[in-house]
Parts: sequence; structure tokens; C-alpha cells
Amino acid sequence: MTYQYEFEVVTRGRDSVDITSQVAQAIHSAGIRTGIAHVFTLHTSCGIAITENAAHSVRTDLETLLERWAPDGDLCYRHTTEGRDDMAAHARSLLTGVSVTVPVSNGRPFLGMWQGIYLFEHRTQSHHRQVVVTVVG
Amino acid sequence: MTYQYEFEVVTRGRDSVDITSQVAQAIHSAGIRTGIAHVFTLHTSCGIAITENAAHSVRTDLETLLERWAPDGDLCYRHTTEGRDDMAAHARSLLTGVSVTVPVSNGRPFLGMWQGIYLFEHRTQSHHRQVVVTVVG
Amino acid sequence: MTYQYEFEVVTRGRDSVDITSQVAQAIHSAGIRTGIAHVFTLHTSCGIAITENAAHSVRTDLETLLERWAPDGDLCYRHTTEGRDDMAAHARSLLTGVSVTVPVSNGRPFLGMWQGIYLFEHRTQSHHRQVVVTVVG
Repeated sequence: MTYQYEFEVVTRGRDSVDITSQVAQAIHSAGIRTGIAHVFTLHTSCGIAITENAAHSVRTDLETLLERWAPDGDLCYRHTTEGRDDMAAHARSLLTGVSVTVPVSNGRPFLGMWQGIYLFEHRTQSHHRQVVVTVVG
Repeated sequence: MTYQYEFEVVTRGRDSVDITSQVAQAIHSAGIRTGIAHVFTLHTSCGIAITENAAHSVRTDLETLLERWAPDGDLCYRHTTEGRDDMAAHARSLLTGVSVTVPVSNGRPFLGMWQGIYLFEHRTQSHHRQVVVTVVG
Repeated sequence: MTYQYEFEVVTRGRDSVDITSQVAQAIHSAGIRTGIAHVFTLHTSCGIAITENAAHSVRTDLETLLERWAPDGDLCYRHTTEGRDDMAAHARSLLTGVSVTVPVSNGRPFLGMWQGIYLFEHRTQSHHRQVVVTVVG
């Protein structure tokens, strides 16, 4: 059985947005008890990843490291059409990935206690980001 | 329903090769309307990732960053049996990953307008790379 | 058809543990011939990734690079509650990811000759790590 659901996240510039409840809702709507849920964003300058959901400082520090790994306005970039954060966003997107897959058990996302699913906005401006959840089981 | 399909990519050394059309063809052959397509390469020194499909400069810059993150011939490497690019390729493979999963909708890969699926050759020489696409839905 | 299986890995601190045989066993138990197997760990300070299974030096060098990319006790970290390796482990987890999906063919994981599935313990102390394998086909 397969169920597909789309939703939009309006980001406020570079930040991570908890989308765990939207994913749980999609799984609930699917009515699938056991399987997997694939969560995918249709963009190349944001990302989806699982990280710690309790201490916000973890995501603050991830932001600091992402800036270190792929600095805005790095002199090496040739791709600069949309500004200092353009290429940095594509590089961050490669590192975080644009999708996660989580197990489904008892009709719910089977996550650890401290795991949350986050959409990472890698651009500095606000964007409308499309997310597609496909539940298979 | 499940469908599995294999194809080979002959790379010309370090570069990224657009395999989106091969993945679309596998999905078309599967005859599955809604589901997911898992794209996997059977190697540890290349990768598969989704990135921008319009401006080639994005992939040029990703190459520059991959060289920064995992430099060829870094003095820290103990694994040097196959030359300066050997360990660098394994490290790049960890960062890009060796597979992506994409949603399938209306019998086609459900991708954003600017998303392409790329096989990243991380070795400096040409290689024959096997790719396995599994469509589930 | 869907089959879900859990197992625990007791790690001995920072290291990578080959879990390929446990994944193969779960696939065998599932009795699914063709499909995908999703391997997921329920934590935010360890990871799951595919890398070279022959030369141990590859994983030694990956460890060196992970330390370079996300150093223990980096002065930039605000999240320091559980010690010098706490935030570093979350950052490593982002880079390795917490899951892999592999093709299933002939009732076995369809991997390349040199590919192994590894649980990467990113903390310096021993931990009990839960792994969930979901086989769909």
C-alpha cells in the first residue's frame, strides 16, 4: 500500500523547522501500521535531516559548523548569481541531504526519544518549501 | 509491487554524471504510478546525490569543496594503497552518500524543477559504475 | 509485504561496527526476494553508513576526518552539557546520517563486493544502540 501527501513550509530564512508532526500526520492519514515513510523536499538549497529535538543549542551549533564547512561568499565560488548565500546553500544541501526515510510502526513514525525531523532552510531569505511524504507498507 | 533495474555508468574520472533520465526510464518500465524509487551504487569510491541541474558552476564548486573537505594525498591518510585519490574518494563517498530515494508520482520521478540525480565519480580515473534502481509502490 | 526487525548494538566507544550480517539476517527472516531494506538507528549521536569493508585503514582515516570536520571540544560549541564529545557526536551524526537503504535481491542485501553497513559510534563512551530494519517488497 502506498500513500503520498504534500505540504508546504514557509521558512523565515536560515533556520531549522521541526516537521515531525506533519510527517506523523501523513503517516496517520495513510493508515499504514508497519512500513517506511520517505520525506523529500523539492529544492536544492534547503535540506531535510534528523537531529536532536530537545536542546536548541544543538541546532545553533550545527548552523555554526555548516557556515564553517560551506562559508557564505567563499572566494572559491564561481556560482554567485543569487548572492553570497547561493552556492553555500547548495553545498549545505549536499551535506544535510534533501530527504530522510523513517520506519513506521503502529501507525506512527518510529523515532528515538530525542530524534526530530527538521527542514533546514539554507538560504538567508524566507522561502516556500514543498515537502512530499510517501508512506509505503 | 516491486521492480528492480540495473544499469552501468562509465565515468571519465572525477566528475558528476546526470542519471535522472535512466532513473525515469526505470520508473516508467516499472509501471508503478505512486511510490518511491531507490537509486543505489554498488561502490565505495563514488556517490549518488541530488543537486542543481541548471548551472554547471554549482557542480564545479561542489568539486572544489569536496577537495577542501577531503583533500587528495592528505598527510593524515594511512590508506594509500591505490594512490593519492584513494582515501579521498572513500571520504567523499561518505559525504555524498551512495544512494538517494525519490518520490514517484504519476509514473515519474517527483523532483523539483532544479533537481537532478547525479552519480559523482570520486576517483580521478575512469570507472565502470553499477547502479541499481528499485521501485516500490 | 513489510517486515520489521529490531536489534541492539553495544558499542565500545567511538568506532564503527559492521552490522551487515544482522541486516542480511533480517532480510532472510523477512522472506522477501526483491525490494529494499531500510536500516535506521534511534539516536542522534551515532550514525549508519556504508563504506569499505576490506581495509580497516579506511575507517581509521574516516575517524581522523570526522575529528577534523567536527572536533571534540571546539570552542564554537554552545551545547556542552555532556562533555567535549557531545556536540561533536551530533555533528558527526548529521554528516554520516542515521540510516541507509539498500536494495534486496534474491532474498539478500544487494551490495557491492567492498561495501559493508556500519554503525558509527560517535560518542567516546560505550552505548547501547537500537537499530530498526524494515524490509519492503
